[in-house]
Amino acid sequence: MARIVVDVMPKPEILDPQGKAIVRALPHQGITAFTGVRQGKRFELEVDGEVTEQVLATAREAAETMLSNPVIEDVVNVTVINDATSTEA
Amino acid sequence: MARIVVDVMPKPEILDPQGKAIVRALPHQGITAFTGVRQGKRFELEVDGEVTEQVLATAREAAETMLSNPVIEDVVNVTVINDATSTEA
Repeated sequence: MARIVVDVMPKPEILDPQGKAIVRALPHQGITAFTGVRQGKRFELEVDGEVTEQVLATAREAAETMLSNPVIEDVVNVTVINDATSTEA
Repeated sequence: MARIVVDVMPKPEILDPQGKAIVRALPHQGITAFTGVRQGKRFELEVDGEVTEQVLATAREAAETMLSNPVIEDVVNVTVINDATSTEA
């Protein structure tokens, strides 16, 4: 079984209150290494069988139309991962 | 400026109502290629300057302690990306 990962992030010009809250909270935990944080979404789509070019095109279409709001979000990544590896290639 | 990406997913044994809602909605849009959907989070941490091994270790610590809930979520990925490339290497 293969999976397709879709990454969605708020557009750079869009305020990201969750990211802002995290970046303000980090110094209270003694963490000062990061100057900014943005929070987005990661989807994993399970595919039975082979990931053909057509399946990937369908994933891209779903990413743009259902998994993201194109007014405020960008689809930054659509990648195939195999379950044989625990992390992305 | 470099960024560190942290990917967090609900643990496999944890119910994911958002993913379930999406997988049920897809056929209504004519999309039948996916047998399952899981929704997680993607964080981008901005780093001024170089991403040293220490900065990466701090990111991993923040990922485990602040950006995820270890009871119900797994940190599946902590990766450095460079802003020169628009997508992950």
